[in-house]
Amino acid sequence: MKKTVQTAVMGVTGYAGMELARLLLHHPQLKGVPPLFLGRAETADTTALTEIHPQLMDNNGSRGLKVEPFSWQLLKDRGVDVLFLATPHEHSREMAAEALEHGLRVIDLSGAWRLHHARNRAVYKFEDEGSATAVSVQAKSVYGMPELHRNEIKDAELIANPGCYATSVILALKPLVAQGWIDLDRGIISDSKSGVSGAGKAPSAKTHFMYAADNLSAYGVFGHRHTGELLEQLEIHSEQIIFTPHLLPIPRGILSTIYVSFREAKTSVEIESCYREFYKDSPMVRLFPAGQLPQIQYSVHTNYCDIGFHLASDGRRCIIVSCLDNLLKGAAGQAVQNLNVMYGWSESEGLE
Amino acid sequence: MKKTVQTAVMGVTGYAGMELARLLLHHPQLKGVPPLFLGRAETADTTALTEIHPQLMDNNGSRGLKVEPFSWQLLKDRGVDVLFLATPHEHSREMAAEALEHGLRVIDLSGAWRLHHARNRAVYKFEDEGSATAVSVQAKSVYGMPELHRNEIKDAELIANPGCYATSVILALKPLVAQGWIDLDRGIISDSKSGVSGAGKAPSAKTHFMYAADNLSAYGVFGHRHTGELLEQLEIHSEQIIFTPHLLPIPRGILSTIYVSFREAKTSVEIESCYREFYKDSPMVRLFPAGQLPQIQYSVHTNYCDIGFHLASDGRRCIIVSCLDNLLKGAAGQAVQNLNVMYGWSESEGLE
Amino acid sequence: MKKTVQTAVMGVTGYAGMELARLLLHHPQLKGVPPLFLGRAETADTTALTEIHPQLMDNNGSRGLKVEPFSWQLLKDRGVDVLFLATPHEHSREMAAEALEHGLRVIDLSGAWRLHHARNRAVYKFEDEGSATAVSVQAKSVYGMPELHRNEIKDAELIANPGCYATSVILALKPLVAQGWIDLDRGIISDSKSGVSGAGKAPSAKTHFMYAADNLSAYGVFGHRHTGELLEQLEIHSEQIIFTPHLLPIPRGILSTIYVSFREAKTSVEIESCYREFYKDSPMVRLFPAGQLPQIQYSVHTNYCDIGFHLASDGRRCIIVSCLDNLLKGAAGQAVQNLNVMYGWSESEGLE
Amino acid sequence: MKKTVQTAVMGVTGYAGMELARLLLHHPQLKGVPPLFLGRAETADTTALTEIHPQLMDNNGSRGLKVEPFSWQLLKDRGVDVLFLATPHEHSREMAAEALEHGLRVIDLSGAWRLHHARNRAVYKFEDEGSATAVSVQAKSVYGMPELHRNEIKDAELIANPGCYATSVILALKPLVAQGWIDLDRGIISDSKSGVSGAGKAPSAKTHFMYAADNLSAYGVFGHRHTGELLEQLEIHSEQIIFTPHLLPIPRGILSTIYVSFREAKTSVEIESCYREFYKDSPMVRLFPAGQLPQIQYSVHTNYCDIGFHLASDGRRCIIVSCLDNLLKGAAGQAVQNLNVMYGWSESEGLE
Repeated sequence: MKKTVQTAVMGVTGYAGMELARLLLHHPQLKGVPPLFLGRAETADTTALTEIHPQLMDNNGSRGLKVEPFSWQLLKDRGVDVLFLATPHEHSREMAAEALEHGLRVIDLSGAWRLHHARNRAVYKFEDEGSATAVSVQAKSVYGMPELHRNEIKDAELIANPGCYATSVILALKPLVAQGWIDLDRGIISDSKSGVSGAGKAPSAKTHFMYAADNLSAYGVFGHRHTGELLEQLEIHSEQIIFTPHLLPIPRGILSTIYVSFREAKTSVEIESCYREFYKDSPMVRLFPAGQLPQIQYSVHTNYCDIGFHLASDGRRCIIVSCLDNLLKGAAGQAVQNLNVMYGWSESEGLE
Repeated sequence: MKKTVQTAVMGVTGYAGMELARLLLHHPQLKGVPPLFLGRAETADTTALTEIHPQLMDNNGSRGLKVEPFSWQLLKDRGVDVLFLATPHEHSREMAAEALEHGLRVIDLSGAWRLHHARNRAVYKFEDEGSATAVSVQAKSVYGMPELHRNEIKDAELIANPGCYATSVILALKPLVAQGWIDLDRGIISDSKSGVSGAGKAPSAKTHFMYAADNLSAYGVFGHRHTGELLEQLEIHSEQIIFTPHLLPIPRGILSTIYVSFREAKTSVEIESCYREFYKDSPMVRLFPAGQLPQIQYSVHTNYCDIGFHLASDGRRCIIVSCLDNLLKGAAGQAVQNLNVMYGWSESEGLE
Repeated sequence: MKKTVQTAVMGVTGYAGMELARLLLHHPQLKGVPPLFLGRAETADTTALTEIHPQLMDNNGSRGLKVEPFSWQLLKDRGVDVLFLATPHEHSREMAAEALEHGLRVIDLSGAWRLHHARNRAVYKFEDEGSATAVSVQAKSVYGMPELHRNEIKDAELIANPGCYATSVILALKPLVAQGWIDLDRGIISDSKSGVSGAGKAPSAKTHFMYAADNLSAYGVFGHRHTGELLEQLEIHSEQIIFTPHLLPIPRGILSTIYVSFREAKTSVEIESCYREFYKDSPMVRLFPAGQLPQIQYSVHTNYCDIGFHLASDGRRCIIVSCLDNLLKGAAGQAVQNLNVMYGWSESEGLE
Repeated sequence: MKKTVQTAVMGVTGYAGMELARLLLHHPQLKGVPPLFLGRAETADTTALTEIHPQLMDNNGSRGLKVEPFSWQLLKDRGVDVLFLATPHEHSREMAAEALEHGLRVIDLSGAWRLHHARNRAVYKFEDEGSATAVSVQAKSVYGMPELHRNEIKDAELIANPGCYATSVILALKPLVAQGWIDLDRGIISDSKSGVSGAGKAPSAKTHFMYAADNLSAYGVFGHRHTGELLEQLEIHSEQIIFTPHLLPIPRGILSTIYVSFREAKTSVEIESCYREFYKDSPMVRLFPAGQLPQIQYSVHTNYCDIGFHLASDGRRCIIVSCLDNLLKGAAGQAVQNLNVMYGWSESEGLE
């Protein structure tokens, strides 16, 4: 008899946590086994999940969904198999080692364990950087992008779920970079734009409606945290790519406009074939026909990463556009996709 | 062996049509039996559905989804059981009689067959008003609000799917009106606000981004088409209610702020009980605790109608707020809910 | 020789403060006499105003505009005549008495001094409520709505600039209430909607882009602070009006949809005449022709209050719609309008 | 005695026409001389301007502002000196020659006369391309960007007011290109984003609220009409720049993120000095301090073009961000700025 999988979610109050709760509650493989929702250990009280997220109510109210104070004992008592961390990266750094010791499989949505090179991690200023524990945990961490690392994910103990921007840029570039077609000396430029949910739920000057609405602003120029993921996953040097994030006046969605030059002239057919071949077994990537570009509206509320491109008449200069929902393929959806791979379920299960 | 149900959708290009396609394609009871999508008979060509709605693509592209030119023969050949009309009301008036003759069950999302009284229909100026055929079709029509007419829907040949505004107002008022608690002489006021998708997909001055964005406007004052539905379903007179629609600068969602006076003072507990009792078997209505009001953000992308209220300290004056997604509970979702009732499936199947 | 007027603005960081700065800097009567901008006394440093509001820069950068730490001595040294308080009401309560003692004329944009009746002030929970100083200051306070109190404003020492919602409701109702036409026993309902700037600049859960965008919510039901202003200025009782504010997903603008019943049937011509007569000398009120309703888009970025109405065929039930920009006619613009009246300038000077 | 200037505006119904009307009505040099507003000759009727744009009403209603049917005789009778064409480019092509024959000075806001090279004009497919008249008119046309062509504008008969995108890109690049600092072989990339008003007032699928809201899309890739202006004004070749426009879900505003490489490493100080020197006499350009980038919110509702930049640590790669209001500095505001230069008034008069 197939054993059911017990999931737990730490950090359900944020936007990604909310989406994760929704996805896990409706996941066909998890029917009858609702996730254990966990709040801070210091909070002694159990809260109804629907107090935090009224949209999860049903006709009977809260459906008995609770957020309980975290403890390792509680996880053990409930027989938790997989722990999702939808927590700030500081918390993920603190919790991962102990979770692994308890034999849990961990899917961490934060930036805590995504980067294998210390120079790329520097921007996070982790307090435990270089400690023996951190080195050991990092060694176990697998970058949770199924399209690139499906096999390692299957048996991974710790999944570092990718950054939202990073997912949009890496998926758009990897097939072409892997072919060696791009002239890296001329540099890649990714002009990326994200909706406000990417900035998190904590109220701040920049997430104020009056700041974001009717506005557009660039930020993190030459220094955004997701840059390290691009370098490691694309295996390129920092001077070979410029990544510029912008804050869009929309709730969710990312669009990256990516500029590359090819070493030799290519045809649209060659480029399209390259993408199709690379993603032929990847159900969560959608390729648009040459010359037709994806838009944010098509990918939000889905777990797809949409990719399209436009080749200049010289066959050398190419603009790639990729779109995704930063809370789904860029966070909670990709986390569930990783869960599916880890347990051998259909990769898109619960995501359509 | 359970026979599967074959659905067909006429008019898939609009917003409600798109939502209907999405819901039917993922409906658990319709697995392996995709709807037949139909376009105008005059259009000889078959189109990929994903050309119209790229968001319905998957990794393999169009998934073979086509929009085919309408003909009665085609419906017969494909063994269609239920025909959804997501067409303008003129088309629904023209098509319904023949569809019924062909033995099809019809779920019409337009305003063509919702109103039983000629004086309420006058605003539509139907060309066939009063004709024998129209009278006969109208007599078969059941107002498709399962919360009020569940039993008649089960065996109905023709479902008139309710208007989006009407759904939000009727569900909020029916339990209280049915009790006879409201002082109708003092009048009910429903100040309702809707997102732009309610205005349809045809580009116009009022659906231009520059008109709707950063704006709010009242329209259809003392004369909106949905008023007749309120009168018939609540069984009240036209001078007993004022219904004022407003155009909100958001894509989807309706919020109605409804003002009533009670004949005698009531308590919040009495009111809450009244609602709970009335909707105890209605999975698609969510009641908020007294004093907590629903918001548009909680109901969009769901098929719920959310209802909350706030009672003045005099126990007489009461403000009821109801919210729903005009494309789901206000259109395509309610249509699928009707389908579920018609075939004896769980009322919320495919809607969560 | 005409003496120029020296203004000072305390609290320039907020949205109303920013608009006030912009208006005063371009006011024809204040040419060459820029306002003195004041920040908290505790902040020892002088800041460039354009660091706070980059939109006030010109080609030469900051134009020498500074925010200086507040002190009474500084006001004296600079010969300040009029002090604008764009501060939270607690600060206005603290500062007004001393300002008056120093012989300054004060225009207070907060709710500190708007209400003459203690029962209406209760909602503010002022710490100094009932103190001799507070009583004395309140006695000097004039409600700064020129359309109603032009003559008292001329010589006022202390102007209590009206609330944004209150302005939209009072201006829409006063002419009809003054005529005694409205059946107050049937109750007035003002269903009002405001953009997010009305909630102030402090980041909070409710001003987060993700909360406000694509949403609509009612709040302050049966208890909003501006209600007292309606009661006092319209001279009605609390059970004669319901005022329900809603948060709109737009930066600025208020629309109030107001429902009244007349004691006796009226014609549209009578109503229009009533408004025209009442506002014939009020340049900042615009009346729309009968049946044509104002919209938020027409009044934002202006200092107008726009008023229109629609009369039911029974001549009794009437819907009035009023619109204004909550930061201009609802705050900074009305403050400058009061300044104009105080100094005998054209009432609309610097406001077109 | 100073003669007053009589202006006329053809095409006042659109967004730029509306802003132009507003600016001219409040222009200090045109006091008492309102513009003559002109509609299509075929429309025999005179309309109140405030019927089209209610926001131009005052307390007395329409203020006598009319839109009159166009005729050359009418222009002569009213002594028109300057004719603004806020018309589609086809109309401007038809009208310009005759206007110049009548001795009028013309400021054309369309794309009709901006491009001096036939290969750049090809994208417009002008019907009269290459005709003797068109060649002669084009020869008289001055590109109306005062920051680059102030002296020629002074005496120009025909001003071709620049495109909105083009203004944002040219002003950001010209100082650096003029110095010869940019490595043109590596290519310039301008990733530009515009609000929806740039798409015009005609309702279309792309200006529908449901298409633009909560969305972002690239368009006109490798082929936007404004590209020719960049080539001519920057004096570069088409393979040296990629310009990619995007449609932003906001009413107004353009932000261009521009990527350049310098031939030799530069310092931020050198770059800032280069800009300051170039724009020292240009009141409508605002330079942001190095490392601080402009945002759309600071420039909308102003006539400024805001420019900022961020230099990589290698001193070679530089990101320039420029912002403006597409209806003001990108259209009507720049047109008035040109008027100011033509008549020797202060360049920013009526624009602050």
